[in-house]
Amino acid sequence: MSDKTRFLLDETEMPTAWYNVQADLPVPIAPSLDADGNPMGPEQLAVLFPMECIMQEVSQERYIDIPGAVLDVFKTYRPSPVIRAKQLERVLGLPAGVKIFYKYEGVSPAGSHKPNTAIPQAYYNKLEGITKISTETGAGQWGSALSIAGALFGIDVEVFMVKVSYEQKPYRRALMETYGASVHASPTNLTAAGRHVLSMDPDSTGSLGIAISEAVEVAATHDDTHYSLGSVLNHVCLHQTIIGLEAVKQMELAEEEPDVVIGCVGGGSNFAGIAFPYYHRRLNGRSKARLVAVEPKACPSLTAGEFRYDFGDEAKLTPQMEMYTLGHDFVPAGIHAGGLRYHGESPLVSALVRSGDVEAVAVHQVASFEAAVQFARAEGILPAPESSHAIRVAIDEALAAKEAGEDKTVLFNLSGHGHFDLSAYEAFNAGKLQDYDFAAGATLCEPE
Amino acid sequence: MSDKTRFLLDETEMPTAWYNVQADLPVPIAPSLDADGNPMGPEQLAVLFPMECIMQEVSQERYIDIPGAVLDVFKTYRPSPVIRAKQLERVLGLPAGVKIFYKYEGVSPAGSHKPNTAIPQAYYNKLEGITKISTETGAGQWGSALSIAGALFGIDVEVFMVKVSYEQKPYRRALMETYGASVHASPTNLTAAGRHVLSMDPDSTGSLGIAISEAVEVAATHDDTHYSLGSVLNHVCLHQTIIGLEAVKQMELAEEEPDVVIGCVGGGSNFAGIAFPYYHRRLNGRSKARLVAVEPKACPSLTAGEFRYDFGDEAKLTPQMEMYTLGHDFVPAGIHAGGLRYHGESPLVSALVRSGDVEAVAVHQVASFEAAVQFARAEGILPAPESSHAIRVAIDEALAAKEAGEDKTVLFNLSGHGHFDLSAYEAFNAGKLQDYDFAAGATLCEPE
Repeated sequence: MSDKTRFLLDETEMPTAWYNVQADLPVPIAPSLDADGNPMGPEQLAVLFPMECIMQEVSQERYIDIPGAVLDVFKTYRPSPVIRAKQLERVLGLPAGVKIFYKYEGVSPAGSHKPNTAIPQAYYNKLEGITKISTETGAGQWGSALSIAGALFGIDVEVFMVKVSYEQKPYRRALMETYGASVHASPTNLTAAGRHVLSMDPDSTGSLGIAISEAVEVAATHDDTHYSLGSVLNHVCLHQTIIGLEAVKQMELAEEEPDVVIGCVGGGSNFAGIAFPYYHRRLNGRSKARLVAVEPKACPSLTAGEFRYDFGDEAKLTPQMEMYTLGHDFVPAGIHAGGLRYHGESPLVSALVRSGDVEAVAVHQVASFEAAVQFARAEGILPAPESSHAIRVAIDEALAAKEAGEDKTVLFNLSGHGHFDLSAYEAFNAGKLQDYDFAAGATLCEPE
Repeated sequence: MSDKTRFLLDETEMPTAWYNVQADLPVPIAPSLDADGNPMGPEQLAVLFPMECIMQEVSQERYIDIPGAVLDVFKTYRPSPVIRAKQLERVLGLPAGVKIFYKYEGVSPAGSHKPNTAIPQAYYNKLEGITKISTETGAGQWGSALSIAGALFGIDVEVFMVKVSYEQKPYRRALMETYGASVHASPTNLTAAGRHVLSMDPDSTGSLGIAISEAVEVAATHDDTHYSLGSVLNHVCLHQTIIGLEAVKQMELAEEEPDVVIGCVGGGSNFAGIAFPYYHRRLNGRSKARLVAVEPKACPSLTAGEFRYDFGDEAKLTPQMEMYTLGHDFVPAGIHAGGLRYHGESPLVSALVRSGDVEAVAVHQVASFEAAVQFARAEGILPAPESSHAIRVAIDEALAAKEAGEDKTVLFNLSGHGHFDLSAYEAFNAGKLQDYDFAAGATLCEPE
C-alpha cells in the first residue's frame, strides 16, 4: 500500500474512451417510449439532440472514443485527483486497516462534475453546425457548466432559469452571464409555453417543469438550436464514466482495491461516473467492490419508488423511460441538495439497482450536513450538499468496519465543492435545517 | 518544448524548504521600528506571534525547512498545477512562439493562496501551546483561510469582521463559522478598543483599522492567544514561496523558461510567492525573467507611493516598516479587488522594486475585468478580481510580443478563483463598474 495522500494522473494517462455499461447489463434496458407509448426512433430526438448523443443513447459498444477536441479541453482540469482522507481518518480514530479515499470533481471550472458532459455535448452540437443550445436550470449548477462549455466552443447558450431562483440567486445568474449565456426568468414571453403560463398567472414564480417546456420549445422551433440535459440520460452517464475510469487507475497507484464505492444520486450521473467502471471491473473479477447509491430520504426514488415507465419531467415532454420513480408529478421537500430533488432515476442506474448489482440507501439532510462539516474541518474542502450524502455513508461504512474490527477501503465521489451553497451551511449552523421523511408524507415547497 | 497542457508535480516532488529572499537582497531591508522609532526586538513581538515566525521575520538563511506536519496538510491540495493557457492563446491569435502559462492557486480549500501561510502559522502556534488565534478580516478571504487552518490543527479562531461586511456578506461569515471559527461584527463590546468606538458612535459600521485593534488587543491580553496576519510581513512572503518553487520545477517540465513572471500586489505575498524563486534563479544565471508586480491604479503604492517608514495599519498598532506607501491613513477607492486595497506594500517586494529588480505597473479595474472575462470564456476558470490584474498584464505582454513579431513565454500567478466575487462580475456585466485614478484624487468609500 502506498503511503501517499494524493494520487494524480498525467494528462497522457487520461482515459481516451468512455465506458458504456449498456454492453454489460444483466438485462438490457427497455426502449424509451413516446407520449403515446410507442418506441422512439432517433429521428424523433434529432430535433433536440446531436446525432452522436442519440446514437450513444442506444449504443451497445463497450468503449466509445472521446473526441480529441474534448480531451484537449478536459486537460485544463482533468484528470481530477484521488485523495486519501488521512486527516479525516485521524479524526475518526480509524485503525490502520480502514481507509477512506475520495475522487474530487470540485476542481472543474464549474466546481462540480457537470462540465464532464457539458463539454462533449457542446462539441457534438458544434460539429453539427448548431449555433445555440437551450436548457433549463434550477439553482444554476447545470446552467453554469453548459455556459462554460458554450463559451469554449463558441456556441450561444440560452438558459431558462426558474424565476424564483433567478430572483433569489443573482450570483448564479451572474456566473452564467459572465460566460456569455443569455439567462431568462422563466416563465417568459419568449415561448408559447411561457406565455400560456403567464396568461393564467402573471405572477407565476415558475417551476423546473415550465422551464423545461420553454427550453424544449425553443430548440424544437429553431433549426439552429438544440436542447441539452445534464443528467439522467444514457449518454450523460456515459460521459461521466471518465470519473471512475480515472479512479480505477488512481486506486491502482494507491495499491488499493476499494471494498465499497459510494456516490450520491439525483438523476444518477455522478454515481454512474464513479460506479460503472467498478461494475465492469467486478465482472472481470478484478474487484469485489460493493456499489452504493445514496439518495435523500426526502426524495427516495430507489428505496421507495416503483420500477416502471414514467416521464422524465412533470410536463410529460420527455420520452417515457423505465426507471425507479416517485411519479413525475412528485414534488420533493425543499432540501438544500437541490441536485438530488428528482422524482426519477437514470434508467441505467435503475437497471443495476433492480438486478441487485447496486445497493441503494437513503439518508437524512441533517446527518448529511453533520458529515459534511466533519469532513470540511478535517480535510479543508467544503463539500456540496449533494456530495455530503455520499460522505455520510462513507463515514458510516468506515465506522462500522472499525466497530467490527474489520479492514475496509472506502472510495467515494466528492462531486463538487460547496462554495455556491453557503446559504445552506448558514441555515445548518443556525440549527434551522430539518429532515423530511418521504414515508411520513412529502412536504411541498418552492423549487430550489 | 512540451506540448502538454497541465504540468503536475507528485507530492514527493513538493519543495520541502521555503526560499528566503533576505539571503539575496541587494540591500538588506531596514529594521522594523516601534511607535517611538526604536528598533523592535523579538520579545516585543512574542506577545502576538509564535517565535518561529518572529525568527523567520529576520532570518538571513536562504532556505528554511517546511515542517513535516505542514507538508502533510499541503498534500491535500498541493502541488498546485501549472497550466498552459492554450485556449486563451488560440482566442488571442498568438503565434507559436508566444505562450502563456499560469500557476493556479484556486485549487486550495479556500479557493486562494492564503492557506499557504495560514497552515504553517497555525502549526507554529499549536507547537507553542497557543489555543486561540485572533485576526481581522474585511471581505473574509483571510478569515476563511485561517479558519480552515485552525480547524485542521485544533486551534480556536476568533475573527473580527468589519461590521458592514459582516452584515452584507453573510455567506463569507457562514464559511468561517462552518469551519468552527467565532466571527464577531466589529466594533464589539468584547474589547476596550471596540467599546471605546461604540461609546463614541453606537452605530459604527466598523473599519479594518478598528478590527485590527480588537484582534491585537485580544491577543495582547490573553496568554493563550496569538494574532495572525495574512500578508505584508516577511514570514508570510516566505511561506508563499512554495508557489514559485513549484512553478520553477513545472516550467522545467514544460521545457520553458519564462521571459516574464507576473503577479498582482496588495500586501505583496502572492507576488512574492511566484516571483522570489525566479529572482533567485536569475541571480544564478538560469533565468532572465522580468518580474512584474501589478497593482490597481486606484491604490498604486509602488508606482505612485513614497519609499519611507510607515505604519502597516491606519491605527498605528503595527511596527513601522520601510516600504512604498500611500500613507497609513490613505483610504483607497472601492474597487472590487478588495485584497489589493492596501496603502503600503511588503518591505521585501518594496526593496526589490527600489533596487530595480522588480518592475511595477498599475492597471485600471474595468480593463482587469475585461481580461478576466476573456480568460474565463477561453480557459473556463473564473478568476478572482485581484488575480485579474495579473491576467490583464499577461495578455498585454503576449499581445505586445505578437505585435513586435517576437517570441515570449509569459507566466502569471492565478492566485484564486472568483466564485466568492460574483457580485463584482454582476456589476461588471451590468456596465456599472468605474475606474478610479489615484492621480485624480482618491474616492472615499465603504470598506469592502
